[in-house]
Amino acid sequence: MAKDFPTREENYSQWYNDLVIKADLAENSAVRGCMIIKPYGYAIWEKMQAILDKMFKDTGHSNAYFPIFIPKSFFSKEASHVEGFAKECAVVTHYRLKTSPDGKGVIVDEDAKLEEELIIRPTSETIIWDAYKNWIQSYRDLPILINQWANVVRWEMRTRLFLRTAEFLWQEGHTAHATSQEAVKEAETMLNVYADFAEKYMAMPVIKGTKSESERFAGAIETYAIEALMQDGKALQAGTSHFLGQNFAKAFDVKFLNKENQLDYVWATSWGVSTRLIGALIMAHSDDNGLVLPPKLAPIQVVIVPVFKNEEQRAHITETVLPIKKALENKGISVKYDDRDTQKPGWKFAEYEFKGVPVRITIGPRDIEQGTVEIARRDTLEKEVLQITDIENKVVHLLDQIQKNLYDKAFAFRENSTYRVDTWAEFLDVIENKGGFALAHWDGSVETEEKIKEETKATIRVIPLNNHPEEGKCIYSGRPSRQRALFARAY
Amino acid sequence: MAKDFPTREENYSQWYNDLVIKADLAENSAVRGCMIIKPYGYAIWEKMQAILDKMFKDTGHSNAYFPIFIPKSFFSKEASHVEGFAKECAVVTHYRLKTSPDGKGVIVDEDAKLEEELIIRPTSETIIWDAYKNWIQSYRDLPILINQWANVVRWEMRTRLFLRTAEFLWQEGHTAHATSQEAVKEAETMLNVYADFAEKYMAMPVIKGTKSESERFAGAIETYAIEALMQDGKALQAGTSHFLGQNFAKAFDVKFLNKENQLDYVWATSWGVSTRLIGALIMAHSDDNGLVLPPKLAPIQVVIVPVFKNEEQRAHITETVLPIKKALENKGISVKYDDRDTQKPGWKFAEYEFKGVPVRITIGPRDIEQGTVEIARRDTLEKEVLQITDIENKVVHLLDQIQKNLYDKAFAFRENSTYRVDTWAEFLDVIENKGGFALAHWDGSVETEEKIKEETKATIRVIPLNNHPEEGKCIYSGRPSRQRALFARAY
Repeated sequence: MAKDFPTREENYSQWYNDLVIKADLAENSAVRGCMIIKPYGYAIWEKMQAILDKMFKDTGHSNAYFPIFIPKSFFSKEASHVEGFAKECAVVTHYRLKTSPDGKGVIVDEDAKLEEELIIRPTSETIIWDAYKNWIQSYRDLPILINQWANVVRWEMRTRLFLRTAEFLWQEGHTAHATSQEAVKEAETMLNVYADFAEKYMAMPVIKGTKSESERFAGAIETYAIEALMQDGKALQAGTSHFLGQNFAKAFDVKFLNKENQLDYVWATSWGVSTRLIGALIMAHSDDNGLVLPPKLAPIQVVIVPVFKNEEQRAHITETVLPIKKALENKGISVKYDDRDTQKPGWKFAEYEFKGVPVRITIGPRDIEQGTVEIARRDTLEKEVLQITDIENKVVHLLDQIQKNLYDKAFAFRENSTYRVDTWAEFLDVIENKGGFALAHWDGSVETEEKIKEETKATIRVIPLNNHPEEGKCIYSGRPSRQRALFARAY
Repeated sequence: MAKDFPTREENYSQWYNDLVIKADLAENSAVRGCMIIKPYGYAIWEKMQAILDKMFKDTGHSNAYFPIFIPKSFFSKEASHVEGFAKECAVVTHYRLKTSPDGKGVIVDEDAKLEEELIIRPTSETIIWDAYKNWIQSYRDLPILINQWANVVRWEMRTRLFLRTAEFLWQEGHTAHATSQEAVKEAETMLNVYADFAEKYMAMPVIKGTKSESERFAGAIETYAIEALMQDGKALQAGTSHFLGQNFAKAFDVKFLNKENQLDYVWATSWGVSTRLIGALIMAHSDDNGLVLPPKLAPIQVVIVPVFKNEEQRAHITETVLPIKKALENKGISVKYDDRDTQKPGWKFAEYEFKGVPVRITIGPRDIEQGTVEIARRDTLEKEVLQITDIENKVVHLLDQIQKNLYDKAFAFRENSTYRVDTWAEFLDVIENKGGFALAHWDGSVETEEKIKEETKATIRVIPLNNHPEEGKCIYSGRPSRQRALFARAY
């Protein structure tokens, strides 16, 4: 198996890249910055999608689909949005190719130039609010609670598999409301959905908060985010939910008759998570032996490896394995029985360990005699021998334990890596030496935030929602501050 | 409700367009040729996706995701593919916009011109086979059985919602095999999956067959297709499955060591269905009263409408309805209870009839007294009064009946609209007057096919797989023929 990759200690960045590629999650494509999500990686995304989709529907949302193309002029309609989004993006200028003069290839047909260029969506607020304009006349048409699963493109110069790619997959919710309060509530609800998903399914603790002005989404009044801490002490923004006020309604002239029979602009939110979550999942739990996947998102939750010397033994073991497999599947567990004779058990052990399968069951001739199996858990690498009786409930229990253990471990790591700092020296020590989150007083100014970023590469990840008001002095400027912000270097 | 639309008899084409828009399935967007799939339409697509995805997985396939962009040069690598695909497509030439000199908008940054233009995928054979090259060394790496759910773009000049749009959603399977036989078998397996889906879920009978050479997919050795007949007597191609031979392996130099330890090119298939199926579904069953949806694909299978005069009655009815709703949901039925007091029952009846909800349950104060409900079925518009006892099983049975009835009706229509014709006059009569499928002898030449198309707009839909060899004379040229082809005008 592919153990020829560095440890986290040796080279965290290389460890991550190698892991993604060698575990068959994704790879780079022929198109710069665009990844290929391979079946094993895509299976994780499908699990994420299924869970999130249900959470969205349970909170009243429906899915829909809007065009991938956005007319260039749409971006200019919302002033801050154009600054944030319309720059690094893929521009479609022509709609036809033709055979080249030498007859050997194709060239762009200059006669087929678009009157107005089309932008591949980097996010869909503009094209969606252009449509909502026709859907909304009265408060009776509200709220509109729509989500879209889609691909988007942002022409990133420095890309990394899952974490930052030119094209990525995501979901984007776009809702329209009659009141500001309702829209704010929606943005907060979806932040909580994301936090629940991260913590309960990804086993990844997150800090909920609001972004500082300079880190806000282009066009938002308030950006809520969840931030997670990776094992190298860098933060990762795992999901955002925006209260957009009436900005897009004004930009696209979307008015409605309210209950008082007066015309008003519609209130908006948008919120999204992306395939970046797969990167977060990998970095949150995996170790120097390979992937570690939380049971709730593992494509294969249990692998059964038979140990046999000949065909007769294999057949005999299979007789015992099939009812176990069936019993596990009846509990909703995804099981793979790998009885190939082209690979030795040791090779398989390494393979599934590397791929992060949470539980491995090994069964050999002696186990058959004794009515036992050997169970290995990926998170702690511990093994134990168990009686086959009631094995399905034992495995269900073990999967729950693993899920909980991964969360607890990540939580403890974050707690140990979160520092309340009160001086610039302490701040520097956290950011540059210890790694992790620094909870520090900040004077609230963009200038200070900028300077801290310039000097340390640390940014304000969020102003935590559960902050206690607390008088203090800005660690950089010394000016008064009334609460702490959460700083870190970030992905 | 929106009854202000023509009957099928009056104007079939307008009937279709109005139905799609007024039933809130889809609408045109600000981008020419690109549709917005609205929640009700998208819910049908989600049902289709879930069923197909399971069918693909049950036949051994996994999902993955490949980039939306294809380098222009890739298209030239497979000679016939470039002819068929690289022409009418969206071309990305730049990757950045900048603020316009007047500061009011954005313009394309000419400094950010791509060295090689990128094409938005019209289909993904080329980018996928470029990746497969690195995945395949030996027969042990085969087969590769991958499917992708994605958006694709073909710059169609004349578009119609669902049936032909510039951007559409689809799935594309791309498989790689060690032998020709295995690839052919795969292509046929997937054709059968599509046919089963069309018949069992869409309640739409289809004819399976192979395409004539001129209608083959660009780059295929053999194209299999399923063809359905719409109510206006025109055919609709509902899915295709291609045996690609070694064409793409040769174009992208994908070789493998076979069991005999010799290098050979890999064998390929590809297969796809798209949101076009929603158009087919609408046209196959709907009537002058609106949509008719088969129960297995209806987003709402049962709607319950209470008839009440005051709040007390409503509360009383609701007490009876909730257990019914629960019992139906426990049977896996999707139920909507519409107890709004902002709309009258009659309005609701028309609304759900128009939206094609298969079963409506009406319940008023007298029903409560008598322990009954009124059940209306959308397909026949029949009503009956039933005892509430065991209502969930009665509804399950009714939904099955409706599903079967829709299929039987569509099947009878197709049978009555399929003609074995032996003369040119008979052929013309079918194509120009009667409408429907003409099973006719054809001499097998491209020239004859072309001329028939020019003179009648009819094309060979397929050469049916279940054809009996039969000596005859081409209806057009009089030359000898050994089997009949299925002709029709088509969408």
